[in-house]
Amino acid sequence: MTAAAKGRLTGVGTGPGDPELLTLKAVRALSEADVVAFFCKKGSAGNGRTIVAAHIRPGTVELPLVYPVTVETHKDEADYRGPIADFFDRSAREIAAYLDQGRNVAVLSEGDPLFYGSYMHLHVRLAPHYEAEVIAGVTAMSGCWSMAGLPLVQGDDILSVLPGTLSEEKLTERLSDTDGAVIMKVGRNLPKIRRALQAVGKLSEALYVERGTMSNGSAQRLADRDESPAPYFSLVLVPGWKARP
Amino acid sequence: MTAAAKGRLTGVGTGPGDPELLTLKAVRALSEADVVAFFCKKGSAGNGRTIVAAHIRPGTVELPLVYPVTVETHKDEADYRGPIADFFDRSAREIAAYLDQGRNVAVLSEGDPLFYGSYMHLHVRLAPHYEAEVIAGVTAMSGCWSMAGLPLVQGDDILSVLPGTLSEEKLTERLSDTDGAVIMKVGRNLPKIRRALQAVGKLSEALYVERGTMSNGSAQRLADRDESPAPYFSLVLVPGWKARP
Repeated sequence: MTAAAKGRLTGVGTGPGDPELLTLKAVRALSEADVVAFFCKKGSAGNGRTIVAAHIRPGTVELPLVYPVTVETHKDEADYRGPIADFFDRSAREIAAYLDQGRNVAVLSEGDPLFYGSYMHLHVRLAPHYEAEVIAGVTAMSGCWSMAGLPLVQGDDILSVLPGTLSEEKLTERLSDTDGAVIMKVGRNLPKIRRALQAVGKLSEALYVERGTMSNGSAQRLADRDESPAPYFSLVLVPGWKARP
Repeated sequence: MTAAAKGRLTGVGTGPGDPELLTLKAVRALSEADVVAFFCKKGSAGNGRTIVAAHIRPGTVELPLVYPVTVETHKDEADYRGPIADFFDRSAREIAAYLDQGRNVAVLSEGDPLFYGSYMHLHVRLAPHYEAEVIAGVTAMSGCWSMAGLPLVQGDDILSVLPGTLSEEKLTERLSDTDGAVIMKVGRNLPKIRRALQAVGKLSEALYVERGTMSNGSAQRLADRDESPAPYFSLVLVPGWKARP
Protein backbone atom coordinates (compact mmCIF):
# COMPACT_ATOMS: atom_id res chain seq x y z
CA MET A 1 0.00 0.00 0.00
CA THR A 2 1.35 3.45 -0.89
CA ALA A 3 1.51 6.32 1.58
CA ALA A 4 -0.99 8.24 -0.53
CA ALA A 5 -3.64 5.57 0.06
CA LYS A 6 -3.48 5.88 3.84
CA GLY A 7 -6.28 7.53 5.78
CA ARG A 8 -6.05 10.82 7.66
CA LEU A 9 -6.03 11.17 11.45
CA THR A 10 -7.90 14.11 12.97
CA GLY A 11 -7.96 15.02 16.65
CA VAL A 12 -11.30 16.76 17.12
CA GLY A 13 -11.82 19.09 20.08
CA THR A 14 -15.47 18.77 21.10
CA GLY A 15 -15.50 21.69 23.53
CA PRO A 16 -16.56 21.50 27.16
CA GLY A 17 -20.04 20.00 26.97
CA ASP A 18 -22.61 22.24 25.29
CA PRO A 19 -23.06 20.71 21.80
CA GLU A 20 -23.34 24.25 20.39
CA LEU A 21 -19.74 24.92 21.44
CA LEU A 22 -18.54 22.57 18.69
CA THR A 23 -16.64 24.44 15.98
CA LEU A 24 -17.65 24.46 12.33
CA LYS A 25 -14.37 22.70 11.62
CA ALA A 26 -15.18 19.89 14.06
CA VAL A 27 -18.57 19.41 12.43
CA ARG A 28 -16.92 19.18 9.02
CA ALA A 29 -14.32 16.70 10.26
CA LEU A 30 -17.09 14.47 11.60
CA SER A 31 -18.89 14.61 8.26
CA GLU A 32 -15.68 13.49 6.52
CA ALA A 33 -14.75 10.73 8.97
CA ASP A 34 -15.13 7.06 8.11
CA VAL A 35 -14.38 6.11 11.72
CA VAL A 36 -15.09 8.06 14.92
CA ALA A 37 -13.01 6.97 17.93
CA PHE A 38 -13.66 8.21 21.46
CA PHE A 39 -12.45 7.59 24.99
CA CYS A 40 -14.94 6.33 27.55
CA LYS A 41 -15.20 4.51 30.82
CA LYS A 42 -16.51 0.96 30.87
CA GLY A 43 -20.30 0.99 30.67
CA SER A 44 -20.46 4.69 29.71
CA ALA A 45 -21.11 6.29 26.33
CA GLY A 46 -18.27 8.81 26.70
CA ASN A 47 -18.84 12.54 27.11
CA GLY A 48 -17.19 13.40 23.79
CA ARG A 49 -19.46 10.96 21.94
CA THR A 50 -22.52 12.44 23.65
CA ILE A 51 -21.53 16.00 22.69
CA VAL A 52 -21.19 15.23 18.97
CA ALA A 53 -24.11 12.76 18.69
CA ALA A 54 -26.11 14.93 16.28
CA HIS A 55 -23.20 15.15 13.81
CA ILE A 56 -22.20 11.51 13.31
CA ARG A 57 -23.33 10.31 9.90
CA PRO A 58 -25.29 7.05 9.63
CA GLY A 59 -22.89 4.28 8.62
CA THR A 60 -19.88 5.77 10.44
CA VAL A 61 -17.82 3.13 12.24
CA GLU A 62 -17.62 3.85 15.96
CA LEU A 63 -14.53 2.84 17.90
CA PRO A 64 -14.85 3.18 21.69
CA LEU A 65 -11.50 3.30 23.51
CA VAL A 66 -12.32 2.06 27.00
CA TYR A 67 -10.01 3.28 29.79
CA PRO A 68 -8.53 0.35 31.70
CA VAL A 69 -8.07 2.23 35.00
CA THR A 70 -9.51 5.21 36.77
CA VAL A 71 -8.04 8.51 35.58
CA GLU A 72 -7.89 9.72 39.16
CA THR A 73 -4.86 7.53 39.91
CA HIS A 74 -1.71 9.63 40.03
CA LYS A 75 0.36 9.49 36.86
CA ASP A 76 3.55 8.58 38.71
CA GLU A 77 2.11 5.56 40.47
CA ALA A 78 3.49 2.31 39.08
CA ASP A 79 0.06 0.68 38.90
CA TYR A 80 -1.11 3.46 36.57
CA ARG A 81 1.80 3.95 34.17
CA GLY A 82 2.06 0.38 32.86
CA PRO A 83 -1.62 -0.30 32.10
CA ILE A 84 -2.26 3.17 30.69
CA ALA A 85 0.77 3.06 28.37
CA ASP A 86 -0.36 -0.36 27.13
CA PHE A 87 -3.84 1.05 26.60
CA PHE A 88 -2.56 3.96 24.48
CA ASP A 89 -0.34 1.58 22.48
CA ARG A 90 -3.26 -0.76 21.84
CA SER A 91 -5.62 2.11 20.95
CA ALA A 92 -3.06 3.55 18.51
CA ARG A 93 -2.75 0.13 16.83
CA GLU A 94 -6.53 -0.15 16.44
CA ILE A 95 -6.67 3.28 14.82
CA ALA A 96 -3.63 2.55 12.64
CA ALA A 97 -5.40 -0.52 11.25
CA TYR A 98 -8.17 1.73 9.90
CA LEU A 99 -5.72 4.36 8.61
CA ASP A 100 -3.80 1.62 6.77
CA GLN A 101 -7.06 0.70 5.01
CA GLY A 102 -7.28 4.27 3.73
CA ARG A 103 -10.06 5.22 6.11
CA ASN A 104 -10.19 8.65 7.77
CA VAL A 105 -10.33 8.48 11.56
CA ALA A 106 -11.60 11.30 13.81
CA VAL A 107 -10.63 10.95 17.47
CA LEU A 108 -12.88 12.93 19.80
CA SER A 109 -11.30 14.89 22.61
CA GLU A 110 -13.35 16.80 25.17
CA GLY A 111 -12.27 20.41 25.46
CA ASP A 112 -9.08 21.03 23.49
CA PRO A 113 -7.13 17.97 22.29
CA LEU A 114 -3.61 19.05 23.27
CA PHE A 115 -4.57 20.69 26.58
CA TYR A 116 -4.75 17.93 29.22
CA GLY A 117 -6.46 15.63 26.68
CA SER A 118 -5.95 11.89 26.24
CA TYR A 119 -5.84 12.36 22.47
CA MET A 120 -2.27 13.66 22.69
CA HIS A 121 -1.03 10.18 23.60
CA LEU A 122 -2.42 8.84 20.34
CA HIS A 123 -1.11 11.86 18.42
CA VAL A 124 2.50 11.32 19.49
CA ARG A 125 2.24 7.65 18.51
CA LEU A 126 0.54 8.14 15.12
CA ALA A 127 1.42 11.60 13.74
CA PRO A 128 4.95 10.56 12.70
CA HIS A 129 3.46 7.87 10.41
CA TYR A 130 0.20 9.33 9.08
CA GLU A 131 -1.19 12.64 7.89
CA ALA A 132 -2.54 14.19 11.08
CA GLU A 133 -4.44 17.35 11.96
CA VAL A 134 -5.57 18.74 15.31
CA ILE A 135 -8.73 20.83 15.53
CA ALA A 136 -8.57 23.15 18.53
CA GLY A 137 -11.58 23.21 20.84
CA VAL A 138 -13.07 25.39 23.55
CA THR A 139 -11.50 24.31 26.86
CA ALA A 140 -13.48 23.33 29.94
CA MET A 141 -12.06 26.32 31.80
CA SER A 142 -13.28 28.77 29.12
CA GLY A 143 -16.70 27.13 29.26
CA CYS A 144 -16.79 27.55 33.02
CA TRP A 145 -15.79 31.21 33.30
CA SER A 146 -18.08 32.09 30.39
CA MET A 147 -21.05 30.38 32.02
CA ALA A 148 -20.28 32.32 35.20
CA GLY A 149 -19.66 35.61 33.34
CA LEU A 150 -16.39 35.98 35.28
CA PRO A 151 -13.61 37.95 33.54
CA LEU A 152 -10.56 35.86 34.37
CA VAL A 153 -7.38 37.60 33.23
CA GLN A 154 -6.53 40.83 31.45
CA GLY A 155 -3.63 42.91 30.28
CA ASP A 156 -0.34 41.74 31.79
CA ASP A 157 -1.92 39.25 34.22
CA ILE A 158 -0.18 35.97 34.92
CA LEU A 159 -2.50 32.95 34.81
CA SER A 160 -1.59 29.72 36.58
CA VAL A 161 -3.38 26.47 35.81
CA LEU A 162 -2.85 24.22 38.83
CA PRO A 163 -3.87 20.65 39.60
CA GLY A 164 -5.73 20.26 42.89
CA THR A 165 -3.42 17.31 43.56
CA LEU A 166 -0.56 19.66 44.56
CA SER A 167 0.38 19.69 48.24
CA GLU A 168 -1.28 22.34 50.40
CA GLU A 169 2.07 24.11 50.83
CA LYS A 170 2.72 24.18 47.08
CA LEU A 171 -0.85 25.27 46.28
CA THR A 172 -0.60 28.11 48.80
CA GLU A 173 2.73 29.26 47.38
CA ARG A 174 1.42 29.18 43.81
CA LEU A 175 -1.80 30.99 44.62
CA SER A 176 0.04 33.76 46.46
CA ASP A 177 2.28 34.40 43.46
CA THR A 178 -0.13 34.67 40.53
CA ASP A 179 -2.86 36.99 39.26
CA GLY A 180 -5.54 34.63 37.95
CA ALA A 181 -5.71 30.90 38.66
CA VAL A 182 -7.64 27.86 37.51
CA ILE A 183 -7.56 24.86 39.83
CA MET A 184 -8.43 21.59 38.14
CA LYS A 185 -9.00 18.08 39.49
CA VAL A 186 -10.91 19.43 42.46
CA GLY A 187 -12.67 16.23 43.59
CA ARG A 188 -11.44 15.05 46.95
CA ASN A 189 -8.95 17.97 47.07
CA LEU A 190 -11.65 20.54 47.81
CA PRO A 191 -10.95 21.06 51.56
CA LYS A 192 -7.23 21.52 50.85
CA ILE A 193 -7.91 23.99 48.03
CA ARG A 194 -10.20 25.98 50.30
CA ARG A 195 -7.55 26.18 53.03
CA ALA A 196 -4.89 27.31 50.54
CA LEU A 197 -7.14 30.06 49.15
CA GLN A 198 -8.04 31.16 52.68
CA ALA A 199 -4.34 31.37 53.57
CA VAL A 200 -3.59 33.78 50.71
CA GLY A 201 -6.75 35.87 51.21
CA LYS A 202 -8.39 34.84 47.94
CA LEU A 203 -11.18 32.58 49.18
CA SER A 204 -13.86 35.26 49.02
CA GLU A 205 -13.34 35.91 45.32
CA ALA A 206 -12.93 32.24 44.25
CA LEU A 207 -15.71 30.64 42.23
CA TYR A 208 -16.58 26.95 42.27
CA VAL A 209 -18.00 25.57 38.99
CA GLU A 210 -19.50 22.15 38.41
CA ARG A 211 -20.23 20.73 34.95
CA GLY A 212 -19.64 24.11 33.26
CA THR A 213 -21.61 24.48 30.00
CA MET A 214 -23.56 21.27 30.62
CA SER A 215 -27.31 21.83 30.89
CA ASN A 216 -27.09 20.94 34.59
CA GLY A 217 -24.01 23.10 35.26
CA SER A 218 -23.78 25.42 38.25
CA ALA A 219 -21.48 28.05 39.70
CA GLN A 220 -21.27 29.46 43.22
CA ARG A 221 -18.79 31.23 45.48
CA LEU A 222 -16.42 28.61 46.84
CA ALA A 223 -16.86 30.16 50.28
CA ASP A 224 -20.56 29.28 50.10
CA ARG A 225 -20.12 25.68 48.99
CA ASP A 226 -20.53 22.89 51.53
CA GLU A 227 -17.85 20.27 52.22
CA SER A 228 -19.57 17.42 50.38
CA PRO A 229 -17.35 15.66 47.82
CA ALA A 230 -16.92 17.52 44.53
CA PRO A 231 -17.02 15.84 41.12
CA TYR A 232 -13.52 15.17 39.74
CA PHE A 233 -14.04 17.51 36.80
CA SER A 234 -15.26 20.52 38.74
CA LEU A 235 -13.06 23.65 38.69
CA VAL A 236 -12.17 26.53 40.96
CA LEU A 237 -11.61 29.91 39.27
CA VAL A 238 -9.70 32.80 40.82
CA PRO A 239 -9.98 36.05 38.84
CA GLY A 240 -6.89 38.19 38.20
CA TRP A 241 -6.36 41.92 37.71
CA LYS A 242 -8.93 43.97 39.61
CA ALA A 243 -7.70 47.45 38.64
CA ARG A 244 -9.54 47.37 35.35
CA PRO A 245 -9.78 50.51 33.25
CA MET B 1 -39.79 51.27 28.66
CA THR B 2 -40.05 48.03 30.63
CA ALA B 3 -37.09 45.79 31.41
CA ALA B 4 -38.60 43.05 29.25
CA ALA B 5 -38.35 45.22 26.17
CA LYS B 6 -34.60 45.66 26.47
CA GLY B 7 -32.25 43.95 24.07
CA ARG B 8 -29.81 41.16 24.94
CA LEU B 9 -26.01 41.56 25.10
CA THR B 10 -23.89 38.66 23.84
CA GLY B 11 -20.10 38.47 24.01
CA VAL B 12 -19.15 36.28 21.08
CA GLY B 13 -15.79 34.49 21.04
CA THR B 14 -14.66 34.35 17.43
CA GLY B 15 -11.74 31.96 17.97
CA PRO B 16 -8.15 32.65 16.97
CA GLY B 17 -8.44 33.44 13.26
CA ASP B 18 -9.53 30.47 11.15
CA PRO B 19 -13.21 31.22 10.35
CA GLU B 20 -13.95 27.49 10.72
CA LEU B 21 -12.98 27.69 14.40
CA LEU B 22 -16.16 29.65 15.09
CA THR B 23 -18.59 27.69 17.26
CA LEU B 24 -22.12 26.80 16.20
CA LYS B 25 -23.31 28.97 19.08
CA ALA B 26 -21.37 31.98 17.80
CA VAL B 27 -22.90 31.53 14.34
CA ARG B 28 -26.37 31.38 15.87
CA ALA B 29 -25.73 34.49 17.97
CA LEU B 30 -24.68 36.41 14.86
CA SER B 31 -27.85 35.30 13.06
CA GLU B 32 -29.93 36.63 15.97
CA ALA B 33 -28.09 39.92 16.40
CA ASP B 34 -29.57 43.24 15.34
CA VAL B 35 -26.24 44.97 15.95
CA VAL B 36 -22.71 43.56 15.67
CA ALA B 37 -20.07 45.57 17.56
CA PHE B 38 -16.34 44.93 17.23
CA PHE B 39 -13.05 46.41 18.35
CA CYS B 40 -10.65 47.66 15.72
CA LYS B 41 -7.75 50.00 15.15
CA LYS B 42 -8.30 53.17 13.20
CA GLY B 43 -8.31 52.42 9.50
CA SER B 44 -8.55 48.64 10.02
CA ALA B 45 -11.53 46.32 9.62
CA GLY B 46 -10.82 44.50 12.88
CA ASN B 47 -9.73 40.87 13.05
CA GLY B 48 -12.91 39.71 14.75
CA ARG B 49 -15.05 41.30 12.04
CA THR B 50 -12.95 39.65 9.34
CA ILE B 51 -13.28 36.21 10.97
CA VAL B 52 -17.10 36.30 11.09
CA ALA B 53 -17.66 38.11 7.77
CA ALA B 54 -19.55 35.20 6.18
CA HIS B 55 -22.08 35.05 9.03
CA ILE B 56 -23.28 38.64 9.31
CA ARG B 57 -26.79 38.97 7.92
CA PRO B 58 -27.55 41.70 5.39
CA GLY B 59 -29.16 44.60 7.21
CA THR B 60 -27.30 44.06 10.47
CA VAL B 61 -26.11 47.33 12.02
CA GLU B 62 -22.34 47.37 12.42
CA LEU B 63 -20.77 49.27 15.31
CA PRO B 64 -16.98 49.62 15.11
CA LEU B 65 -15.34 50.44 18.45
CA VAL B 66 -12.10 52.16 17.46
CA TYR B 67 -9.25 51.91 20.02
CA PRO B 68 -8.01 55.38 20.93
CA VAL B 69 -4.43 54.26 21.76
CA THR B 70 -2.09 51.43 20.93
CA VAL B 71 -2.76 48.30 22.98
CA GLU B 72 0.98 47.86 23.42
CA THR B 73 1.13 50.64 25.99
CA HIS B 74 1.50 49.21 29.50
CA LYS B 75 -1.74 49.13 31.46
CA ASP B 76 -0.23 50.92 34.43
CA GLU B 77 1.04 53.88 32.46
CA ALA B 78 -0.99 57.01 33.16
CA ASP B 79 -1.26 57.94 29.50
CA TYR B 80 -3.00 54.62 28.85
CA ARG B 81 -5.40 54.22 31.77
CA GLY B 82 -7.37 57.43 31.37
CA PRO B 83 -8.06 57.32 27.62
CA ILE B 84 -8.78 53.59 27.61
CA ALA B 85 -11.23 53.80 30.52
CA ASP B 86 -13.01 56.67 28.76
CA PHE B 87 -13.10 54.59 25.60
CA PHE B 88 -14.72 51.61 27.37
CA ASP B 89 -17.24 53.92 29.07
CA ARG B 90 -18.15 55.53 25.76
CA SER B 91 -18.38 52.16 23.97
CA ALA B 92 -20.63 50.78 26.71
CA ARG B 93 -22.92 53.81 26.33
CA GLU B 94 -23.16 53.32 22.57
CA ILE B 95 -24.12 49.69 23.05
CA ALA B 96 -26.55 50.52 25.86
CA ALA B 97 -28.37 52.90 23.51
CA TYR B 98 -29.16 49.99 21.19
CA LEU B 99 -30.06 47.65 24.07
CA ASP B 100 -32.47 50.27 25.40
CA GLN B 101 -34.20 50.25 22.02
CA GLY B 102 -34.79 46.51 22.44
CA ARG B 103 -32.14 45.54 19.92
CA ASN B 104 -29.87 42.52 20.49
CA VAL B 105 -26.17 43.38 20.37
CA ALA B 106 -23.39 40.87 19.70
CA VAL B 107 -19.90 42.07 20.63
CA LEU B 108 -17.15 40.20 18.84
CA SER B 109 -14.11 39.13 20.81
CA GLU B 110 -11.14 37.41 19.21
CA GLY B 111 -10.23 34.17 20.94
CA ASP B 112 -12.24 33.77 24.16
CA PRO B 113 -14.08 36.86 25.47
CA LEU B 114 -13.11 36.63 29.16
CA PHE B 115 -9.49 35.51 28.58
CA TYR B 116 -7.39 38.64 27.94
CA GLY B 117 -10.23 40.05 25.79
CA SER B 118 -11.37 43.66 25.55
CA TYR B 119 -14.99 42.51 25.69
CA MET B 120 -14.72 41.95 29.44
CA HIS B 121 -14.53 45.71 30.02
CA LEU B 122 -17.90 46.14 28.35
CA HIS B 123 -19.31 43.11 30.17
CA VAL B 124 -18.54 44.48 33.63
CA ARG B 125 -20.15 47.78 32.66
CA LEU B 126 -23.30 46.36 31.03
CA ALA B 127 -24.07 42.92 32.53
CA PRO B 128 -25.47 44.37 35.78
CA HIS B 129 -28.13 46.25 33.78
CA TYR B 130 -29.01 44.00 30.82
CA GLU B 131 -29.50 40.32 30.06
CA ALA B 132 -26.01 39.20 29.07
CA GLU B 133 -24.47 35.96 27.83
CA VAL B 134 -20.86 35.07 27.04
CA ILE B 135 -20.10 32.52 24.33
CA ALA B 136 -16.74 30.89 24.98
CA GLY B 137 -14.31 30.71 22.07
CA VAL B 138 -11.16 28.85 21.07
CA THR B 139 -8.19 30.80 22.46
CA ALA B 140 -5.23 31.96 20.39
CA MET B 141 -2.93 29.69 22.38
CA SER B 142 -5.07 26.59 21.60
CA GLY B 143 -5.05 27.58 17.94
CA CYS B 144 -1.27 27.87 17.99
CA TRP B 145 -0.37 24.57 19.66
CA SER B 146 -2.97 22.76 17.53
CA MET B 147 -1.53 24.18 14.32
CA ALA B 148 1.91 23.05 15.51
CA GLY B 149 0.66 19.62 16.70
CA LEU B 150 2.44 20.24 20.00
CA PRO B 151 0.95 18.52 23.09
CA LEU B 152 1.23 21.23 25.71
CA VAL B 153 0.27 19.93 29.14
CA GLN B 154 -0.92 16.65 30.55
CA GLY B 155 -1.86 14.92 33.78
CA ASP B 156 -0.74 16.94 36.79
CA ASP B 157 1.26 19.51 34.82
CA ILE B 158 1.26 23.13 35.91
CA LEU B 159 0.70 25.60 33.07
CA SER B 160 1.82 29.23 33.38
CA VAL B 161 0.55 31.88 31.00
CA LEU B 162 3.09 34.71 31.15
CA PRO B 163 3.25 38.12 29.49
CA GLY B 164 6.52 38.78 27.65
CA THR B 165 6.51 42.17 29.36
CA LEU B 166 7.78 40.61 32.64
CA SER B 167 11.36 41.45 33.62
CA GLU B 168 14.04 39.00 32.53
CA GLU B 169 14.62 37.98 36.13
CA LYS B 170 10.92 37.31 36.73
CA LEU B 171 10.51 35.46 33.43
CA THR B 172 13.49 33.23 34.25
CA GLU B 173 12.14 32.47 37.71
CA ARG B 174 8.68 31.65 36.35
CA LEU B 175 9.97 29.45 33.54
CA SER B 176 12.19 27.46 35.90
CA ASP B 177 9.24 26.69 38.16
CA THR B 178 6.52 25.44 35.80
CA ASP B 179 5.85 22.48 33.53
CA GLY B 180 4.26 24.02 30.45
CA ALA B 181 4.29 27.71 29.59
CA VAL B 182 2.71 30.08 27.12
CA ILE B 183 4.43 33.43 26.66
CA MET B 184 2.22 36.11 25.16
CA LYS B 185 2.94 39.65 23.95
CA VAL B 186 6.21 38.55 22.40
CA GLY B 187 6.82 41.51 20.08
CA ARG B 188 9.85 43.53 21.12
CA ASN B 189 10.37 41.20 24.11
CA LEU B 190 11.70 38.36 21.96
CA PRO B 191 15.43 38.69 22.81
CA LYS B 192 14.64 38.79 26.54
CA ILE B 193 12.36 35.74 26.28
CA ARG B 194 15.06 33.85 24.44
CA ARG B 195 17.63 34.63 27.13
CA ALA B 196 15.27 33.55 29.93
CA LEU B 197 14.52 30.22 28.21
CA GLN B 198 18.22 29.66 27.58
CA ALA B 199 18.95 30.31 31.27
CA VAL B 200 16.53 27.58 32.40
CA GLY B 201 17.58 25.06 29.73
CA LYS B 202 14.26 25.16 27.84
CA LEU B 203 15.22 27.07 24.71
CA SER B 204 15.68 23.96 22.58
CA GLU B 205 12.12 22.75 23.15
CA ALA B 206 10.40 26.15 22.85
CA LEU B 207 8.27 26.83 19.79
CA TYR B 208 7.68 30.24 18.24
CA VAL B 209 4.28 30.69 16.54
CA GLU B 210 3.17 33.62 14.41
CA ARG B 211 -0.45 34.21 13.36
CA GLY B 212 -1.53 30.74 14.53
CA THR B 213 -4.56 29.41 12.60
CA MET B 214 -4.44 32.28 10.12
CA SER B 215 -3.89 31.10 6.55
CA ASN B 216 -0.41 32.68 6.65
CA GLY B 217 0.49 31.30 10.09
CA SER B 218 3.84 29.67 10.79
CA ALA B 219 5.62 27.80 13.58
CA GLN B 220 9.31 27.14 14.12
CA ARG B 221 11.72 26.30 16.94
CA LEU B 222 12.46 29.52 18.79
CA ALA B 223 16.15 28.59 18.70
CA ASP B 224 16.00 28.73 14.90
CA ARG B 225 14.24 32.07 14.64
CA ASP B 226 16.24 35.16 13.75
CA GLU B 227 16.30 38.32 15.88
CA SER B 228 14.07 40.41 13.62
CA PRO B 229 11.12 42.03 15.42
CA ALA B 230 8.20 39.69 16.16
CA PRO B 231 4.54 40.66 15.69
CA TYR B 232 2.90 41.69 18.95
CA PHE B 233 0.46 38.77 18.85
CA SER B 234 2.98 36.01 18.27
CA LEU B 235 3.38 33.38 21.01
CA VAL B 236 6.08 31.20 22.47
CA LEU B 237 5.01 27.72 23.62
CA VAL B 238 6.96 25.57 26.07
CA PRO B 239 5.63 22.00 26.39
CA GLY B 240 5.23 20.38 29.82
CA TRP B 241 5.41 16.81 31.05
CA LYS B 242 7.78 14.69 28.95
CA ALA B 243 7.37 11.36 30.79
CA ARG B 244 4.22 10.51 28.91
CA PRO B 245 2.74 7.03 29.25
